[in-house]
Amino acid sequence: MASAYPPSLTALIEEFEKMPGIGHKSAVRLAFHMMNVPEEKARHFAEAILSARGNVRLCGLCQNLTDEEICPICSDPRRDRSLICVVESPKDLAAMEKTREYHGLYHVLHGALSPIDGVGPEDLKIKELMSRLGAEVAEVIMATNPTVEGEATAMYLSRLIKPMGIKTTRIAHGIPVGGDIEFADEMTLTRAMEGRREI
Amino acid sequence: MASAYPPSLTALIEEFEKMPGIGHKSAVRLAFHMMNVPEEKARHFAEAILSARGNVRLCGLCQNLTDEEICPICSDPRRDRSLICVVESPKDLAAMEKTREYHGLYHVLHGALSPIDGVGPEDLKIKELMSRLGAEVAEVIMATNPTVEGEATAMYLSRLIKPMGIKTTRIAHGIPVGGDIEFADEMTLTRAMEGRREI
Repeated sequence: MASAYPPSLTALIEEFEKMPGIGHKSAVRLAFHMMNVPEEKARHFAEAILSARGNVRLCGLCQNLTDEEICPICSDPRRDRSLICVVESPKDLAAMEKTREYHGLYHVLHGALSPIDGVGPEDLKIKELMSRLGAEVAEVIMATNPTVEGEATAMYLSRLIKPMGIKTTRIAHGIPVGGDIEFADEMTLTRAMEGRREI
Repeated sequence: MASAYPPSLTALIEEFEKMPGIGHKSAVRLAFHMMNVPEEKARHFAEAILSARGNVRLCGLCQNLTDEEICPICSDPRRDRSLICVVESPKDLAAMEKTREYHGLYHVLHGALSPIDGVGPEDLKIKELMSRLGAEVAEVIMATNPTVEGEATAMYLSRLIKPMGIKTTRIAHGIPVGGDIEFADEMTLTRAMEGRREI
């Protein structure tokens, strides 16, 4: 039996169902929400999708998402151009920026090395990173995730970059602030012990 | 500090955040999903919203959502026109249709009476229901929800319709199939006892 909803509504429900983490019930709820908001708001939403798709591109330098040729961070004269922090994704960059503590530049790899998933160096923005490593760069900070893939990527990059006479560092792993040693996993505890500092 | 995402992407995240049940993290995830699908699919999605908004209207008879003047159910000659099943919402109608057991017509009220929320008879599609109650209608089935509002609405409608010499009935309440008596609430158990039938 066909859906009890009209074809155009069924089509919209199916579109929502294609999105990650959206099941059938959520898709119905979201599609009905779109039916119930004022027409102008629905058009607004559709235009926001098209506008984001039309305007967002990768920054010519750091490969972060941006509406411009060069992103606001790369074109900000107050940022320290001797530091490049390498992250896997724009979300990681956003998290880092939220700390307000880092004032260098970034480089977004758009992934991490993963032979199992068929992700090799040529699938990441590594060529673009290498071409940025001029004389003004003093340190490249590996802020990839503390996963097998993230570690492998940090290791791979550091082997490429160190011979160029540029310092490469890895962000510290350890007990999260506010975390509980009792509940920390062994890997994290091991890393926390290894990274201990004199106080 | 401004968002680390470009303005057009931030705008899209904010649009997703306006949707029911979508928090900030889900909104970011959905917006990034839209950035990663092929451009054609993103356009497809935007068009599905506009198409649903542009085409979906209320059926001239039953008030269900439809792409046409009169919905496929109302215009289906095989449906029993002597039966009208009154539901609160298009979703309830869809649930009923899924059973494949009911072959009469429907009427969608688009809500239930709720004095507390300021929903009176004139806010529901009651006038439209009354105008459909011609000589061919033998029975009106109240399939409003088993809530205070749904019960009040069923009662209100039955008082309007009964004097016209049309039979009004209420769907049965009781233990859900596969449900457990041990965990049924008192109201449901009471209704199940009241609705008992000889076997």
